[in-house]
Amino acid sequence: MALRGNACIGQSGGPTSVINATMVGAVEAARDIDGIERFYGALHGLQGVLDEDLVDLFREDPDHLAALRYCPSAAIGSVRLKPKEEHLQRALEVFRAQNIRFFFYNGGNDSQLTCHLISELAKSSDWEMCIIGVPKTIDNDLVVTDHSPGFGSAARYAAAAVQFAARDSEAFGNPHVVEVMGRHAGWLTAATGVGAVEAGDAPHLVYVPEVPVTREQFVEDVAEHFQRWGTCVVAASEGFTFAGETEFQVSDKVDSFGHARLGGVAQGLSDVIEEAGIAKRCRNDKLGNLQRCFAWAASETDLEEAYAVGREAAVRASRGETDVMITIERESDDPYRWECGVTSLVSVADQTKLVPREWLNERANGIGDEMRRYVLPLIQGRVFQMEPGLPRYPKLARHFVEKKLPPSAPSK
Amino acid sequence: MALRGNACIGQSGGPTSVINATMVGAVEAARDIDGIERFYGALHGLQGVLDEDLVDLFREDPDHLAALRYCPSAAIGSVRLKPKEEHLQRALEVFRAQNIRFFFYNGGNDSQLTCHLISELAKSSDWEMCIIGVPKTIDNDLVVTDHSPGFGSAARYAAAAVQFAARDSEAFGNPHVVEVMGRHAGWLTAATGVGAVEAGDAPHLVYVPEVPVTREQFVEDVAEHFQRWGTCVVAASEGFTFAGETEFQVSDKVDSFGHARLGGVAQGLSDVIEEAGIAKRCRNDKLGNLQRCFAWAASETDLEEAYAVGREAAVRASRGETDVMITIERESDDPYRWECGVTSLVSVADQTKLVPREWLNERANGIGDEMRRYVLPLIQGRVFQMEPGLPRYPKLARHFVEKKLPPSAPSK
Repeated sequence: MALRGNACIGQSGGPTSVINATMVGAVEAARDIDGIERFYGALHGLQGVLDEDLVDLFREDPDHLAALRYCPSAAIGSVRLKPKEEHLQRALEVFRAQNIRFFFYNGGNDSQLTCHLISELAKSSDWEMCIIGVPKTIDNDLVVTDHSPGFGSAARYAAAAVQFAARDSEAFGNPHVVEVMGRHAGWLTAATGVGAVEAGDAPHLVYVPEVPVTREQFVEDVAEHFQRWGTCVVAASEGFTFAGETEFQVSDKVDSFGHARLGGVAQGLSDVIEEAGIAKRCRNDKLGNLQRCFAWAASETDLEEAYAVGREAAVRASRGETDVMITIERESDDPYRWECGVTSLVSVADQTKLVPREWLNERANGIGDEMRRYVLPLIQGRVFQMEPGLPRYPKLARHFVEKKLPPSAPSK
Repeated sequence: MALRGNACIGQSGGPTSVINATMVGAVEAARDIDGIERFYGALHGLQGVLDEDLVDLFREDPDHLAALRYCPSAAIGSVRLKPKEEHLQRALEVFRAQNIRFFFYNGGNDSQLTCHLISELAKSSDWEMCIIGVPKTIDNDLVVTDHSPGFGSAARYAAAAVQFAARDSEAFGNPHVVEVMGRHAGWLTAATGVGAVEAGDAPHLVYVPEVPVTREQFVEDVAEHFQRWGTCVVAASEGFTFAGETEFQVSDKVDSFGHARLGGVAQGLSDVIEEAGIAKRCRNDKLGNLQRCFAWAASETDLEEAYAVGREAAVRASRGETDVMITIERESDDPYRWECGVTSLVSVADQTKLVPREWLNERANGIGDEMRRYVLPLIQGRVFQMEPGLPRYPKLARHFVEKKLPPSAPSK
C-alpha cells in the first residue's frame, strides 16, 4: 500500500542552471498527488534536514515557484556534506518527527550514495519511506543515466563561450586556451567540440583528463593548427595533465570529500604555448563558476528534462518506489527522443562515468562522431525569460516549518 | 569641395561585441554616397594598411555583411600598434597608391592618437584626405563622448554574470569575488553595480581602480555584508589595488603600448577574505575575454549606436569633415535619447576618462545614483540572432585588393 505523509527535497553539490526546475517539477507534480500532504524544502540539502531547517514549498506563491523554474542555482541552498553514521540517524529522526515519508535528493554521485545510505537505514527501521535520488551534475559523470540534468546547459554555455572566444582570438591571430570544468570526467570539455563543424573551426583541439597526451604532442598539435589556420583555440578540462606530469594541480586545498581543488590549466597550457615559441602571446580564459549558472545560455532540452525528472520522482515515490535514482533514457539522437526511467541507487552511488576513449579521435585531441551525436541534442534551445535588462528572479518567501526536535549536536 | 575616391576602415585595439556593427554601418552608408568609389577593409588595422592587405568590402555578399553586424569581435582583424614616424609615412603612401581619400579608424584612445597623427601628416602633404576616428572601447575611457560603443554590451555581460554568480554564491553561502576588465578606468566594474536594486542584492561591494581603499576597509566591508546577508558578492576591477599596495599586479609582461598586463585580483581578494577568517572558502571568477565577445548578452542600445557611429563617420567624411572623432551625445536618461556628434581628434587622443569620485558612494565601495542613471539605458536589450544551437556567423569572403607598392620594411 502506498505511503501517506509529507515530502522533502534537498539540493546537493555544485549548483546548475536547471536544478530549481527539478524542484519545481517535483512540487508541481506533488500538488496533484493525494498521498503527499506537505512538501518541504530542506535548506542546504542534508544540512537542512539535520538542523530541521525546512520550508513549506506548498505555501510559496505558485507563480513565484513557476518563475523559479528558470532561475539558476540552488534556491533552497546546496551543501557538500559526506554524512557520518550519526548524521544518517539524525536525518531519520527528523523525517519521523516531521512525518516525512518521501525524500528526494537532487545531486551527483556523492549525493546518490548519501541517498542510498539513508534508504538502507530507513529499511532497517520502523519508519517506512520512499527515497528517490534525482540526477544533477554539470560534469555528466553519473553512470546508467544517458546524461544528467545540468550538463546540457553548462555544455551550451561552454561551447558558446569557446565560439565567442574564437572570434576574439581571430582578431589578433593569437592562440587561445579555454579551461572548462571537469576534474576527472571530460564530458563538458568534449561538448565544446561540437562547435567545430568545418575544417578550421574552433575548437581546434580538445583535451580531456581521461586521456592525457604528452607535452611533446601538445606542442606539436598547437603548432600545426596555428600554422595552418593562423589561430588555434584549445579547450582543456581543469583536470587535464600531460602524460606522466601533475603540474597543473596548483592548489593543495581539498573539498570536504577530499577532492583536489584544481586550477591553472588555462594559464599553464598558455605558458607552454608561449614558451614553445609558437606565438608571442597566447590568451587564456577559465570559464569558472559561470558554467553552472549563466542561465541566459541554458539549453531548452536540459530545462525540460530537469523539470521532468523532478515530476517523475514525485510520481514514482507516490507509487511506492524507493532506493532508486531517476534516469534519462535516450531513444534516438535525431530526432531526439527520450523518456525517464529508474535505476537502483547502489548502481550509481559513488561511481564515475568517464568519456570513452573511442568517442575521441585517434590522437585524443578532438571528438569523434559518436560524441557529436550524443551532445548535439542536449545543447539546443533558446534563452528563457530573457529580460530587457538584467536577470531577476523571485525570491522564495521561505515559510519555515516548526521544529519538532531539540537541536542536534554540531554536525560538521 | 568634397573629395572623391576610395574609403578604408581599420579595427584597432581590443575587440568588442559590436565593432563589426560599426564597420557594417560605414559600408552600408557608403553604398549610397556618390564620392566613395570602393570601400576597403584593412586587415588588422594599421598593420593591414602598412602591408597593403586590403579587402574590398563592397564586393562582400550584402546579406553576409548584414549578418556580420551581429558577429562579435573584429571580422577584419585588429591590432595593437603604436606607430612610428616611418609607419605614418608608409600609411600615407598606401593611401595615395590605392586612391584612398577617406580613412576610418575604429578604436580607443591610442587609436584616436594614431588617427590624429595620420591626419596631421596628410594635411602637410599634397594628398588631401578625410580622416575620422570612430569610438570603440569596452573600457569606456574615451573622453568627450558620453560613452563608447562596446561598453554597453560588455557591461551587460559583466552585470549579468555578477547576478548569476550571486545565485551560485547563495547556494553555499560563500563570499564571491568577480574580476571585471579595466586597468585604470572602473566603468565596467561600476556598471555591474546597477544589478543591486534592493537592500541585500548583489553586487554588495564594488571597487574601482580610481579610488583605492585600504586593506582594512575592504576586510571590514566584506565582513559586515557577509554577516548581514549570509553572502557577499564583490565586483572588482582588474586594476584595483589596496591603497598604498601593488600586490595584485602579478604579471611583469607589458603590451606593445607599455601597459601592464594585470591579473589576479579575483584570486588575490579571495585569499584576503579567506585569510581574514570571514569565510572558510571564498569563490572567485575572472570574467576575462568573454566580456568583449559574449554576444548573446549584447546590449540592443549598444548595437544600434555602434552601427550609427559607423554610418555617421561615412556621411561626415563624404561631406569633407576630417581630423574628428564621432561622439555620442546623450540628450536624456529616461526616456533615453541620444544623437551623434563630433569632437576634434586632438581632444580625445591619448586621454583617459575616469569614473568621477562623486559617482561612487561615500565609502567608495559601491555606486551612486548618477552612475546608475548613466549605465541603465546602455545595458538594455534582448539577445540578437539567438540560434537554437551554437553561435555561427558568416565568414567574410575577403576579396583582396591588388597591391600597388613594393613591400615595406618590417614594421614592428
